[in-house]
Amino acid sequence: MENRQKPSNMPIDRYVSYDKLFNTKLPDRTWPDKVITEAPRWCAVDLRDGNQALIDPMSPERKMVMFDLLVRMGYKEIEVGFPSASQTDFDFLRRLIDEEKIPEDVTIQVLTQAREHLVKRTYESLRGAKRAIVHLYNSTSTLQREVVFRQDREGIKQIALEGVRMCKRFEDLAPGTEIYYEYSPESFTGTELDYALEICNAVTEAFDPSPERKLILNLPSTVEMATPNVYADMIEYMHRNLDRRDSIILSLHPHNDRGTAVAAAELGYMAGADRIEGCLFGNGERTGNVCLVTLGVNLFTQGVDPQIDFSNIDEIRRTVEYCNQLKVGERHPWGGDLVYTAFSGSHQDAIKKGFEALDVKAEEQGKVADDIEWEVPYLPIDPRDLGRTYEAVIRVNSQSGKGGVAYLLKEHHNLDLPRRLQVEFSGIVQQHTDSEGGEVTADEIWNQFIHEYLPAEQVEDKWGRLEIFGTRTQTEMDGTTVLDVKLRVADETREISTAGNGPIDAFLKALEGKGYEVKLYDYVEHTLSASGDALAAAYIELETNGQRLWGVGIDPDISNASLKAIVSSVNRALRNTAK
Amino acid sequence: MENRQKPSNMPIDRYVSYDKLFNTKLPDRTWPDKVITEAPRWCAVDLRDGNQALIDPMSPERKMVMFDLLVRMGYKEIEVGFPSASQTDFDFLRRLIDEEKIPEDVTIQVLTQAREHLVKRTYESLRGAKRAIVHLYNSTSTLQREVVFRQDREGIKQIALEGVRMCKRFEDLAPGTEIYYEYSPESFTGTELDYALEICNAVTEAFDPSPERKLILNLPSTVEMATPNVYADMIEYMHRNLDRRDSIILSLHPHNDRGTAVAAAELGYMAGADRIEGCLFGNGERTGNVCLVTLGVNLFTQGVDPQIDFSNIDEIRRTVEYCNQLKVGERHPWGGDLVYTAFSGSHQDAIKKGFEALDVKAEEQGKVADDIEWEVPYLPIDPRDLGRTYEAVIRVNSQSGKGGVAYLLKEHHNLDLPRRLQVEFSGIVQQHTDSEGGEVTADEIWNQFIHEYLPAEQVEDKWGRLEIFGTRTQTEMDGTTVLDVKLRVADETREISTAGNGPIDAFLKALEGKGYEVKLYDYVEHTLSASGDALAAAYIELETNGQRLWGVGIDPDISNASLKAIVSSVNRALRNTAK
Repeated sequence: MENRQKPSNMPIDRYVSYDKLFNTKLPDRTWPDKVITEAPRWCAVDLRDGNQALIDPMSPERKMVMFDLLVRMGYKEIEVGFPSASQTDFDFLRRLIDEEKIPEDVTIQVLTQAREHLVKRTYESLRGAKRAIVHLYNSTSTLQREVVFRQDREGIKQIALEGVRMCKRFEDLAPGTEIYYEYSPESFTGTELDYALEICNAVTEAFDPSPERKLILNLPSTVEMATPNVYADMIEYMHRNLDRRDSIILSLHPHNDRGTAVAAAELGYMAGADRIEGCLFGNGERTGNVCLVTLGVNLFTQGVDPQIDFSNIDEIRRTVEYCNQLKVGERHPWGGDLVYTAFSGSHQDAIKKGFEALDVKAEEQGKVADDIEWEVPYLPIDPRDLGRTYEAVIRVNSQSGKGGVAYLLKEHHNLDLPRRLQVEFSGIVQQHTDSEGGEVTADEIWNQFIHEYLPAEQVEDKWGRLEIFGTRTQTEMDGTTVLDVKLRVADETREISTAGNGPIDAFLKALEGKGYEVKLYDYVEHTLSASGDALAAAYIELETNGQRLWGVGIDPDISNASLKAIVSSVNRALRNTAK
Repeated sequence: MENRQKPSNMPIDRYVSYDKLFNTKLPDRTWPDKVITEAPRWCAVDLRDGNQALIDPMSPERKMVMFDLLVRMGYKEIEVGFPSASQTDFDFLRRLIDEEKIPEDVTIQVLTQAREHLVKRTYESLRGAKRAIVHLYNSTSTLQREVVFRQDREGIKQIALEGVRMCKRFEDLAPGTEIYYEYSPESFTGTELDYALEICNAVTEAFDPSPERKLILNLPSTVEMATPNVYADMIEYMHRNLDRRDSIILSLHPHNDRGTAVAAAELGYMAGADRIEGCLFGNGERTGNVCLVTLGVNLFTQGVDPQIDFSNIDEIRRTVEYCNQLKVGERHPWGGDLVYTAFSGSHQDAIKKGFEALDVKAEEQGKVADDIEWEVPYLPIDPRDLGRTYEAVIRVNSQSGKGGVAYLLKEHHNLDLPRRLQVEFSGIVQQHTDSEGGEVTADEIWNQFIHEYLPAEQVEDKWGRLEIFGTRTQTEMDGTTVLDVKLRVADETREISTAGNGPIDAFLKALEGKGYEVKLYDYVEHTLSASGDALAAAYIELETNGQRLWGVGIDPDISNASLKAIVSSVNRALRNTAK
């Protein structure tokens, strides 16, 4: 069968293969024969590299939440900022030190460029800390030497060495602080290997570390430029050739431009590195830093202790999402919403048989299934080891094109359910499927939706203690809304008049007057299509008499839709109470 | 500096290192010395593996959109479904064939298990197609043999061989269709290597391919279980030892459980494979299939023609997001929102100098910058080659803790701006920053927001041709809303009465009566806090006299907020017209 692919019109002549730019081949490499058997030293750079790449940099409060999370998980080296470049970073560092937030066994790390006022300010920020790593960097790449610094190799090396001297000179500004050093030849992957070695050895000599007081040499893949085996070759070369290797902690800092940062970190670690810098869920400049969660759990799946606690991955994820204000993708390894989900029937069947076999094996060994070796098809780990479940994420789904619950309601009925309502309703459909079996059709799902949330819209099986027949709203110039509503309660229909700071407020007050204790949690509304004469849908999450449930209202009038949604939620709660 | 990491309480005893389970070492491997110099054969499996893993499987319409996209990009082998397992897949395939949607140079591929009724149905689905690949699979892993099939090696091999016989037997059902074959030992990475080789060789013998009519042998990393170098070793072993290698197209199908699918595909390709199966932006079961976009653009950055057109990556992404109903992450390589953004001052400075150097170099060569070799720090490619820009994605950002535009409005004012409005407003703030320079404070951003969208709320500099003073709404039992509104137009204030299918509709009709041509595009509303007496915010995207702009309204009454938002948008359009 012939290959029918054709040349594209992409301007490939503008780009040159990495191996033509840099000679990094290491024919006698040993890393491909290695297997990882213990965790590296981790350094979490979420508060520096991660934070500086956010649309919305963390507030001091979010920074503290992130720091506490990293400490709780077990990270012992945490880069907390670039205090000389940012006043917030400086203030945050002072707060950590002054409020004694840094546990005894955690070492903070701060970044600085090799410029006098920055180095000085860095030490000022550290005053009173028990222990710290000062992380000095300058860019060494061919390109930056030429276009940014306009200096030759020797000139750039002098910048680094001058930085070392400044560091030593200003140490006195943080008396009593145990200072350790890290040096990064920034843009290492864009630097000629022999020159990277030369500059690292010069810096080592200048810092004069010892096996008891090591220097961290950090070799960043500032921009990921080639397949990850190339980075591994480069790391093995450095590992073998660095002077005073026994006084060096060799560190990696991979970025993910080519989508292979995890591989680069793993292969680089096999190639002789000791330490890895990264961020939770891969935050950081552009495509991000290597993901510390992926690296850690990858170790765990091989029976290697990551020395980090991932047992509640959802809490980790929620906290990271809160701090970074960025969502973790549905398919992110180990932590995404969909990674323990099986949709296909054959997968589900195999998983079921795997669980059964595990139970049998456990019984034979006189143990519980949780204590024996995990092996279930399509599930590389037991999701419960990370606080997740396999069962919880089976979706009501159909291969026959009717689509899932949320999709169906969106596509056929223009309803855009909030995520938590999607989950609530999926559970209801799931129950129905479990009890009746077979495939759920589009119509069945819609009928279940109406029956559950819009009982008043039905001809048959209409239910619900409350019902709204019509409203009249009047907003006065002072902002008060007067609401007249024709409301049925059980068999009695009356027109009631109420007032509040808007129709929802007014109606909740009316319900209160009737003895219902109702608290509003969430409220979302949208039109059903892009024209002015459309229907509006309102979704309201309420707690009624202690039960937190969603309600839905659909009406041409926005206010009415909200009031109907309140009625929907209250009716559902009352029905449950009656059961 | 001592390593202070401590053991975690993770249950590591439940897991065994891959190298203890499978012997895959290949000490004389050659792949680490290879460099990729040409594109592999691609096979896009978005419509099968991707689709089956969606919360909301694609509708027939979305499937067609995906198929057209894949064809347009240049994919020549496209797995379109599992027609024997799914009626929608069957129907979609029939539609492709009957409506002659398959270009001459594109080969469709269909998946089937080795079971008689499935194989038969597969050929029925293909009738009338010009050319097709029938993709036969059965699971061969140690674990599945034991717990799912309860068969030994020989038994599982017979399932495969029986499949081959069935395929040949039913070929007559698709007369006139050129049939090619693909075989996958599913769960290859969980299969002993020697057994995988044995079963592949047996299947090869049974299919009896030739160099002119090759068989595709596809070796899936159904579950990614080890570092990517291990997969590469396994592929090189198979590549070297497969019988009749010149009659085989060796194919890869990596999943991303450990976050290293891109690396596995690249190293596996270097190890001797010919072909790669994957999905756009890495859709697929659990963590997804390998991302074809990342692989393709990775080649492009090395001056290797991917033979796929990525020149409008935003369109590709939007289409994929529409089809899959899953967002592509902000940091996804080459396509994410943030991957060509530089936040840090030193990065921005280096990039600026890189652009300047490029211009100088171009002038020296008598060319334009677009035609010379790309080299700019921190930007591995010219974003414009993918239809993106560097400039367009600089965010208004502050390292001083005030946060970005969207965050600020959310955090300080509880306003949750729709994404497109965020973009619109960011541009406005950016203009202001460019013209005034310096850092933008929280107050300045809020003042700009008020000035732009809520001019009527200001004491000074109040502007806008229209203004609402108060409303009275009455909803009749028949659904008609009668709206009385006190409206200022220029210097004249009048009470007007209008009616419609809801207050928005009524108000738009009133504006129409005043000669404004207004079309509603989008409408979002939320309360400002979780209590009934809160303010509501409404965001409305309108086209007024040909200008599409957002408007914002804030009011205790939901209806009023919407009407104010309309006024906000119309005022902005009128101001622009007046300029």
